[in-house]
Amino acid sequence: MYKAAVLVSPEEITIEERQEPRLDPNEVLIKVKFAGVCGTDIALFSGEYKVPLPLVLGHEFSGEVVEVGSTLEKELIGKRVVAEINNSCLSYRNKDLCRFCERGLSNHCARRTVVGIVSYDGAFSELVRVPVGSVHVLPPEISLKEAVFVEPLAAAIQTFELVPVNKDDKVAVLGVGRLGTLISAVANSLGARVIAISRSKQKLERAKKFGASEVINSSLEDSVQKLKDITNGVGADIVVEATGTAEGLSAALELVRPRGTIALKTTCGLVSPSVNFTKAVVDEIRVQGSRCGPFDRAIERLKSGTIPVGSLISDSYPLEKVKDAIVAANSASKVLIDLENQV
Amino acid sequence: MYKAAVLVSPEEITIEERQEPRLDPNEVLIKVKFAGVCGTDIALFSGEYKVPLPLVLGHEFSGEVVEVGSTLEKELIGKRVVAEINNSCLSYRNKDLCRFCERGLSNHCARRTVVGIVSYDGAFSELVRVPVGSVHVLPPEISLKEAVFVEPLAAAIQTFELVPVNKDDKVAVLGVGRLGTLISAVANSLGARVIAISRSKQKLERAKKFGASEVINSSLEDSVQKLKDITNGVGADIVVEATGTAEGLSAALELVRPRGTIALKTTCGLVSPSVNFTKAVVDEIRVQGSRCGPFDRAIERLKSGTIPVGSLISDSYPLEKVKDAIVAANSASKVLIDLENQV
Repeated sequence: MYKAAVLVSPEEITIEERQEPRLDPNEVLIKVKFAGVCGTDIALFSGEYKVPLPLVLGHEFSGEVVEVGSTLEKELIGKRVVAEINNSCLSYRNKDLCRFCERGLSNHCARRTVVGIVSYDGAFSELVRVPVGSVHVLPPEISLKEAVFVEPLAAAIQTFELVPVNKDDKVAVLGVGRLGTLISAVANSLGARVIAISRSKQKLERAKKFGASEVINSSLEDSVQKLKDITNGVGADIVVEATGTAEGLSAALELVRPRGTIALKTTCGLVSPSVNFTKAVVDEIRVQGSRCGPFDRAIERLKSGTIPVGSLISDSYPLEKVKDAIVAANSASKVLIDLENQV
Repeated sequence: MYKAAVLVSPEEITIEERQEPRLDPNEVLIKVKFAGVCGTDIALFSGEYKVPLPLVLGHEFSGEVVEVGSTLEKELIGKRVVAEINNSCLSYRNKDLCRFCERGLSNHCARRTVVGIVSYDGAFSELVRVPVGSVHVLPPEISLKEAVFVEPLAAAIQTFELVPVNKDDKVAVLGVGRLGTLISAVANSLGARVIAISRSKQKLERAKKFGASEVINSSLEDSVQKLKDITNGVGADIVVEATGTAEGLSAALELVRPRGTIALKTTCGLVSPSVNFTKAVVDEIRVQGSRCGPFDRAIERLKSGTIPVGSLISDSYPLEKVKDAIVAANSASKVLIDLENQV
């Protein structure tokens, strides 16, 4: 038997005792050590982002493999690992691939479930089963706590996979919460000049440590004029919308230069109000959504130690206190669910 | 003296007698022969698309050069011409270029005015002055009536300059009015499989003649399931939003496949209601605005005679009846203001 924190309806989480699962040959079982609370978890918990419930949340996690479905994978047992969250034809090593996996777009697999988000129980749980193709073994340089950042860092890296950034591009990051901060670090490492925008002085101070070269401490509305001043009236080459709110896109449209790009990262599930797309047409603006990214490259970055992710962790909660953890994450840095230690 | 139809406030047009202008050395004066009514004119006339007034509308036009500001350009006199609508450092042949003209992005010139749209009187007028760099001499194969389509055809071509299309891509065109029909023709010529979507059977019949290989005759909402059926559940590779309404974007987000692209063409000035951008993030969708395009390529296409633009003309009005022409254009094909003939 093991414990799992189940979201049964919006804002209602119960701790369930569950039977250990029987694995299919293409699955492994992971004993969860640490799991992070993400903005998506907050939106799923509140019900703003609607998915089928009941569901065990948690898609940023690290752990240790305790069981494998096939003896072919027995060398994985005992390994410190993280796992990708899109369960696809490829991660299950199916022979019959869907039209997206066929093209290498397994994160968009037509049959996919998503760990802790779409129809697949996640890591706010003592145990989580995942397809074997999703597993990445951690190098010794990365601690299990730091490894929780592999998934969000991969998502930050993906931003600039789909929105190419040139050296010295001015990249405005709207909202420097957990994800916006990681995106600032990635943009900086790609040679961009990062301008962080937030109402929180504290978050902006942190963003500076993660690569922001300039900061604008104001509301979204007031930031428009300030950014124009910084960019000689032109606007940003790229605006990353990572506010976690529905209002960010309208501000981004004002902040970006003609022929510039807005990178959308927010998955709050809310409807954006009052967006005037005539400006996007007149200024020939590109708006590019992006989601999950390359785990191997995120692991390489964490291994290099150049992004101080440990400093993003503000607090830890035991599994029984998942609800408190999610509430705390609303106004904090990265909150962890700690299944390794008594906290 | 010459006559111009001036939009003095929304829905109020007066015919003014004006003095002939004195030209600067970098300008030419065109006697307007034909001008087309565009969706943008309709939105400007109604006040949905707000710009400084009073203004002479009209940005799709052909005519004959009757005066030049510099004897260096005297060979232009008497020539049949069209003119680009973005007045930029480059079109005025300034030596001191703004930061956009410097990069070749003169359609986004920091100092630009736009003929018939932004702070510059347009072609619903007997005479229009334009910067000499905007003028394109027409080849004899193109009639002055057909030449009215150079500007909108260039805009249609621009769609796929910013949204590359691959052979056999499924391109859904949402709204096959004047512009959507031209876009269908361009997409077809680039090797795409064009699926036209409209509530009007008549417009869909026309779209077939312009290159649509399939049509969906339904509301935006109902078209989603029908397009899924046509595309084996995948969705379109590219969705062109050319409805001229604020609602099209939400439908486009439902119609496009993961990692697909939405090309925005509507400049109705209205705010898009209820757009849920979480889907754009999850499905990693690109939304690309585009506006004015390359006149030289549009002229080449018209010269080839492969797009039957003449069949798009539904009616002609004299200058004094501009208001009637705009009202008629709401529910018609291309309506012309005819300054050549008594109509």
